[in-house]
Amino acid sequence: MTPEAVAATLQALRTRTPLVHSITNLVVTNSTANALLAIGASPAMVEAVEEAGEFAAVADALVINLGTMSAARAAAMKLAAAAAREAGTPWILDPVAVGAIGYRSAVAVELLALRPQVVRGNASEILALARLAGAMAEDGGGRGGGRGVDSVAEAGEALAAAERLARSSGSVVVVSGATDYATDGSRQVAIRNGHPMMPRVTGLGCTATAIIGACLAVEADPLAAAAHGMVMIGLAGEIAGEQAHGPGSLQVALLDVLYALDTQTILAKARLDPSV
Amino acid sequence: MTPEAVAATLQALRTRTPLVHSITNLVVTNSTANALLAIGASPAMVEAVEEAGEFAAVADALVINLGTMSAARAAAMKLAAAAAREAGTPWILDPVAVGAIGYRSAVAVELLALRPQVVRGNASEILALARLAGAMAEDGGGRGGGRGVDSVAEAGEALAAAERLARSSGSVVVVSGATDYATDGSRQVAIRNGHPMMPRVTGLGCTATAIIGACLAVEADPLAAAAHGMVMIGLAGEIAGEQAHGPGSLQVALLDVLYALDTQTILAKARLDPSV
Amino acid sequence: MTPEAVAATLQALRTRTPLVHSITNLVVTNSTANALLAIGASPAMVEAVEEAGEFAAVADALVINLGTMSAARAAAMKLAAAAAREAGTPWILDPVAVGAIGYRSAVAVELLALRPQVVRGNASEILALARLAGAMAEDGGGRGGGRGVDSVAEAGEALAAAERLARSSGSVVVVSGATDYATDGSRQVAIRNGHPMMPRVTGLGCTATAIIGACLAVEADPLAAAAHGMVMIGLAGEIAGEQAHGPGSLQVALLDVLYALDTQTILAKARLDPSV
Repeated sequence: MTPEAVAATLQALRTRTPLVHSITNLVVTNSTANALLAIGASPAMVEAVEEAGEFAAVADALVINLGTMSAARAAAMKLAAAAAREAGTPWILDPVAVGAIGYRSAVAVELLALRPQVVRGNASEILALARLAGAMAEDGGGRGGGRGVDSVAEAGEALAAAERLARSSGSVVVVSGATDYATDGSRQVAIRNGHPMMPRVTGLGCTATAIIGACLAVEADPLAAAAHGMVMIGLAGEIAGEQAHGPGSLQVALLDVLYALDTQTILAKARLDPSV
Repeated sequence: MTPEAVAATLQALRTRTPLVHSITNLVVTNSTANALLAIGASPAMVEAVEEAGEFAAVADALVINLGTMSAARAAAMKLAAAAAREAGTPWILDPVAVGAIGYRSAVAVELLALRPQVVRGNASEILALARLAGAMAEDGGGRGGGRGVDSVAEAGEALAAAERLARSSGSVVVVSGATDYATDGSRQVAIRNGHPMMPRVTGLGCTATAIIGACLAVEADPLAAAAHGMVMIGLAGEIAGEQAHGPGSLQVALLDVLYALDTQTILAKARLDPSV
Repeated sequence: MTPEAVAATLQALRTRTPLVHSITNLVVTNSTANALLAIGASPAMVEAVEEAGEFAAVADALVINLGTMSAARAAAMKLAAAAAREAGTPWILDPVAVGAIGYRSAVAVELLALRPQVVRGNASEILALARLAGAMAEDGGGRGGGRGVDSVAEAGEALAAAERLARSSGSVVVVSGATDYATDGSRQVAIRNGHPMMPRVTGLGCTATAIIGACLAVEADPLAAAAHGMVMIGLAGEIAGEQAHGPGSLQVALLDVLYALDTQTILAKARLDPSV
């Protein structure tokens, strides 16, 4: 979890072009596929029960994102996650808006039991998932649950919940925000890259999840994969935000910057702190 | 319905960040979510029967758009609209391609009976919906029904139909085109902002609907919310169109301009005429 | 199949604004709708069993793309393809990831039996479809099947498979790659426009399919429609790629270039070779 290690993960993505199976929400299919292509991976959105299990078994990594949830999508997600476990395909869960809607909260808990290597959410989502998973008392951990998909809490408020959730679930937990945190329950790392305009572009959290998914295909330590992926998206958002005139041009520039990201830029600008 | 009132609505969006629940078509999920974020709202696309009713009751406004219709989506829309009525959540209906396809015409009439605060469509759609809703004779009102999602009639041709539909349904009706019109059946307003390249970007009508939806959360008069929203999207499209090299860069610039939109620009350039 | 003929097809698109019915994947709905609008067509995404058959019968062309397949989408595709055959609506099949997943391979063979005017895929897809359709021995034709949606073979490797598939199916077959090939089983054409960054933007193959679909509405010879469409997207990608800073700005510039494409540019830069 050093800038050098982030650069090595990026080079591995570019060399190995991992096949990243995504079951993601209807808002970000295009933007996350483009981000995965830009960083060097080969994305494939395969989302139906007829295909998801078969495909997860041959993919190099699996990304499951609970936005625009439905019973049909939930069924495909469970098949894919189970097939991934069986085949040894690493996978990541993005519990979008968990806690804000009853149906998807139940699905999130079921998926968590299938042991994703990484869970990534904003502070509201991680606080809610920790409660739902029984890792915290119902009234613990600050303000908690968001109303929609945007967080109403700061990432730092969810750090204790993230640690408990990581210990109880066995998954690395990432809380993203102005500063991002990743923990496996014992080790922790903070990532301080990013740009304040990023929350005004839809789905950049989903994009972070997708990029961590790609990193899981080439980096065996899930905490390192999570931290490296968060540096890549944070750094790309930071550089793109400095170039952009607003969220529209930020979304476009982000893909250009991910495509051009190189060792030199990472060594100069990555801000990750494993001693938090 | 003055430039000052448009600016006040914009400031209210930025201050209150309303949660806008959208059940929209598969083409515009990303672009409308980004437009809502850029103008200051918090979008959430929640589209399945398992979740839509619960979420509509807690949202600040609801947007229902009939593009890429299916039986499953229609069921979710009806649940959401009914929940919105029950909870007092204001909502807007965008009857995409109504009249051109039998199934969605029937769904549009059912949804209209659930009393949206606003209906927004192009001239072909409003002419078709007025006929389907029994507000006009079958042969009345000019050329009427489009073949697809693009209008074959001018907005002015649908003005009489819009007034009758507004009176019979109790909804404010917006007809968008080169000039946009909004009416509650007695009052009328014309909005003359926009750019001729806008119809070459997919889903800007859907984006207008989404922005009006956000305005409904902060402006109690539906006719004012409709007029203010149409000024915001028309003005942003106008400024973006002047900067753009084509429809690709217009789509990107539109988000940047929505994000940067301010009182000064609105006071200088809004062209809305309540005396039409 | 000359630059002059490509320019004539483009002018016909702009004059007649054909209604292009698309049942396409969830990743590219927005980008292909925008490409169709930019080139001069009127796209309509109508994707459910309740509507697809009725709409295919009134559209000017139909595009069926197998990405993000499901049983519900497959049912709508079969209804639409059958209605298109019945009504004389020309249609094109894009067998995304055929061969890589069992379910969609079966659907692809069923749809091929409904005689699309054109089939377009990458080399892996065309090799796989030729085998599945019985046009080649199981072990014939080079490396073949991709793992995901990206090809692992070069277009030239699939040329013999494309010819056999065209003869057995009666469809024009397009293999896209660094050089694109189109064949009706006796005639052949190579298109040498394009840019090496194009595969790093998601769905440009799907966009090529959509544009050929539009061309089928205005050009009676399917081989000419296929070749002309491939020149349009290849040339636009080439010019956009020269302007772009990366795949994000390429995707945006592509729409601007398609919108601005004119006879002069086509005559100067089209590289199609019917004598291959």
